[in-house]
Amino acid sequence: MTATSARRRAGGRAGHAERLGTQSVQQMGWRIPSNPDRPTDPMDEDGVRAIHDAAMRILRDIGIRFLNDEALEILRRAGCRIRGDVVCMDADFVTEMVARAPSGFTITPRNPERAIPIGGRHILFGNVASPPNTWDIERGKLPGAMEAYRDLVKLTQYFNCIHFCGGYPVEPLDVHPSVRHLECLLEMLTLTDKACHAYALGPERIEDAMQMVRIAAGLDEDDFRRQPRMFTNINSVSPLKHDQPMIDGALRMARNGQAVIVTPFTLAGAMAPVTLAGAVALSIAEALSAIALLQYAAPGAPVVIGTFTSNVDMRSGAPAFGTPEYVRATQMTGQMARFYGLPLRSSGVCAANVPDGQAMWETCNSLWAAMQSGTNMVYHAAGWLEGGLIASPAKFVMDCEVLQMLQRYMEPELWATDENALALSAIAEIGHEGHYFGCAHTQQRYSTAFHQPFASDWRNFEAWTADGAVWTSERAHRIARSILAEFVPPPMDDAIREELSDFVARRKREGGAPTDY
Amino acid sequence: MTATSARRRAGGRAGHAERLGTQSVQQMGWRIPSNPDRPTDPMDEDGVRAIHDAAMRILRDIGIRFLNDEALEILRRAGCRIRGDVVCMDADFVTEMVARAPSGFTITPRNPERAIPIGGRHILFGNVASPPNTWDIERGKLPGAMEAYRDLVKLTQYFNCIHFCGGYPVEPLDVHPSVRHLECLLEMLTLTDKACHAYALGPERIEDAMQMVRIAAGLDEDDFRRQPRMFTNINSVSPLKHDQPMIDGALRMARNGQAVIVTPFTLAGAMAPVTLAGAVALSIAEALSAIALLQYAAPGAPVVIGTFTSNVDMRSGAPAFGTPEYVRATQMTGQMARFYGLPLRSSGVCAANVPDGQAMWETCNSLWAAMQSGTNMVYHAAGWLEGGLIASPAKFVMDCEVLQMLQRYMEPELWATDENALALSAIAEIGHEGHYFGCAHTQQRYSTAFHQPFASDWRNFEAWTADGAVWTSERAHRIARSILAEFVPPPMDDAIREELSDFVARRKREGGAPTDY
Repeated sequence: MTATSARRRAGGRAGHAERLGTQSVQQMGWRIPSNPDRPTDPMDEDGVRAIHDAAMRILRDIGIRFLNDEALEILRRAGCRIRGDVVCMDADFVTEMVARAPSGFTITPRNPERAIPIGGRHILFGNVASPPNTWDIERGKLPGAMEAYRDLVKLTQYFNCIHFCGGYPVEPLDVHPSVRHLECLLEMLTLTDKACHAYALGPERIEDAMQMVRIAAGLDEDDFRRQPRMFTNINSVSPLKHDQPMIDGALRMARNGQAVIVTPFTLAGAMAPVTLAGAVALSIAEALSAIALLQYAAPGAPVVIGTFTSNVDMRSGAPAFGTPEYVRATQMTGQMARFYGLPLRSSGVCAANVPDGQAMWETCNSLWAAMQSGTNMVYHAAGWLEGGLIASPAKFVMDCEVLQMLQRYMEPELWATDENALALSAIAEIGHEGHYFGCAHTQQRYSTAFHQPFASDWRNFEAWTADGAVWTSERAHRIARSILAEFVPPPMDDAIREELSDFVARRKREGGAPTDY
Repeated sequence: MTATSARRRAGGRAGHAERLGTQSVQQMGWRIPSNPDRPTDPMDEDGVRAIHDAAMRILRDIGIRFLNDEALEILRRAGCRIRGDVVCMDADFVTEMVARAPSGFTITPRNPERAIPIGGRHILFGNVASPPNTWDIERGKLPGAMEAYRDLVKLTQYFNCIHFCGGYPVEPLDVHPSVRHLECLLEMLTLTDKACHAYALGPERIEDAMQMVRIAAGLDEDDFRRQPRMFTNINSVSPLKHDQPMIDGALRMARNGQAVIVTPFTLAGAMAPVTLAGAVALSIAEALSAIALLQYAAPGAPVVIGTFTSNVDMRSGAPAFGTPEYVRATQMTGQMARFYGLPLRSSGVCAANVPDGQAMWETCNSLWAAMQSGTNMVYHAAGWLEGGLIASPAKFVMDCEVLQMLQRYMEPELWATDENALALSAIAEIGHEGHYFGCAHTQQRYSTAFHQPFASDWRNFEAWTADGAVWTSERAHRIARSILAEFVPPPMDDAIREELSDFVARRKREGGAPTDY
């Protein structure tokens, strides 16, 4: 009702352009969507078993290199066979360790109202993470900088359909790597109140991040450890390796009760077999080896299995996203995640360089793949371009439009068949001649029956032309600028803000983190 | 292998721009896709039963106006209750008639290799049909004309992922309505060899169309009638009416053994209840009433139930497409089609005015809705803009890119888990350090493992910029021009061509069809 009233006050269609410049978008409220659709299962039970058996054979016969001495020591103690830094695990051990992982858990950030339940039927969306560049329609492609970082963090906070910060939405290359994590987290923890990712890039960074998340939430050390407050994502170095800093960070997080997502980056035809079953089996083996390690070191630690299996352009080796192969690999991994009882992470990704038609068909395919695979956490769900090399505010806005549609798509009232929904009395009232717009059944539901977009333009060609014939990418750019102009950060207690700033100042004085990684 | 070799000869990436201008796209071959995915069923069995019961109550208690005397006479004979032109049908009668309809059938056009099986798991794609305008990036929006009509028919023929001509891809407004059907069908039947739609706009037009399809296929009258050779689509006039010419055409087609698609145009909040269950129930009632009529008049006639249920923009009354409401309504209608054992038609639609990001997220949503609903015929799957008011060659090309991806997505080799697919020996061979690109397992599958797009640009930002930074809509425009420049019509026997031309010349001399509809 409020949205409708606001729209009327602003003059309906005629007020459209004006509204873009003077008030923020009318967006959907914060909600934790639950995906009611049965997952799409391309494989039958034998197929799932075949992938599992292949993964177990990889772990038993080929093994995984752990470039981390502590991990080798832990796994030696666990009874795994070690040759050099290659660890071979038996199926029984892997199965037993994976069974220790919870099928779901909740990450509670500094604002408990933004707590996110991971697992079950929940599907949650995160912002783009880690591109080294930004692009916008006015300035083109630019190296990532702190100003752009702040803008993208603000969009992350602003949109209610973004449930978590999946990492730095762009790398601020103008901040020295030794202190970048401190400045980035300070901005993220003050500009947002949503659950945050921290990078596992050596002990100092992840320990600093845990301290800062703890301080931001006003917790003591014990309270912090009592439940997941944050998360990290580690990638294997495919094929079949885990590196030193990521495993180190994962172990530190798990031992502190914080969530770890394990996402092999298995591009079929490059770091993984060209066949999807092979690529998925490799990905599963890599992920389970790290999860087994974490569950041995910290039984019951909250973990998520991730997939980033896609194909490459066989002409250039460039990664491709949102392809038929990507969608099926994601669905297949979803079947495996359910087989192991683990929450699943996938992504909203594309290869396109600008937020045009290709960007949206690739992104929509990956978002539908997330829906169809039973994904619980969708990384990069807003703002990603150029295979992850570009973060774009306009694309962020366009993606949020699609995410809102998906959220609305999951609301059961859409397919309700109670007497009110069947509307037989309205059908009898209107009969053969009337129009439904004026009837009471419609008027009672006028403002809530249908999802209201904010970036789509549904006017006819002539009205759209009279208003400047603005294409979607440009409309989205203007919306992003308008949101940023009005952005109000979430409240934070002054004492906490001071403690955070003091922590950052001290750690910067101490030199931050080593940069020899 | 051929595609790859051609690509290499053309100089790989460097030859990209050149290829666009000098040779047609490397497209996927003709195939009849079979959709392996379990449909997405939002409603449970009680919900399906509730929609069915509501539709039966509408047919029994409110009835359907048939503005066609012959239909009224047939339904009176069938024992329906008639008050004026309102026909009330009992559930038993409707159920008995609907059960007469085949669950599937094949439409065989003049080229039997383009026969299309309708029903079961098949999903087939048709071109945009019936917009009164065209749009392209050079000329903007223009009233439909015969030259643009020919271009769009050529694209329909060119793309192997387009299985049927769903109608005039644009209305050639420069041809007088009395003879338009003759000129349009002459072009369609000579420029394509795919299954054609004919409009049910009065007896002369549909009879002329049947004669022309018969002549083009070199058939006598009996052979023509023996199996479906063509199809029509009729829309009810919602709420709860069927008009004179469409019912007339449908009856003529059905009695000649030709296929009839019945597609109510039920926009929730306008011609249908604002609630989806009500809109779907209304749509089902309207569709079943026409199907019951056809099955009484021509038992076993090939029919398809169509859905065009979407919502309107509550601010303007403009139709919206690819919305959450659209996707769910399509899935719900899919459940009803399976309940009745009827093939399903839906659409690939959008509200966007130009082929930009919005156009593609709306179109992708409607195409995924088609996949998820078990749709058998997807109307308007390529080239549609502005809610059906614009046909666009560039959008046609972009949509075909997406359709090819969907076709590839349905190929079972993607999720195969046989020994070759699991690739364990390749995984052992590469171990922890290698790259899969060079191994035999990859090289053997190099050219076929992954779908190769033709309109996507997967190059990085710098290579794409160096080549002109061409956005998808512009690339697609160039591809369309290139295809049209090289178009070769399918072969047709000279005698048949002459017979067709003679028929058209005679009917034009006779004045064509009346234009007082």
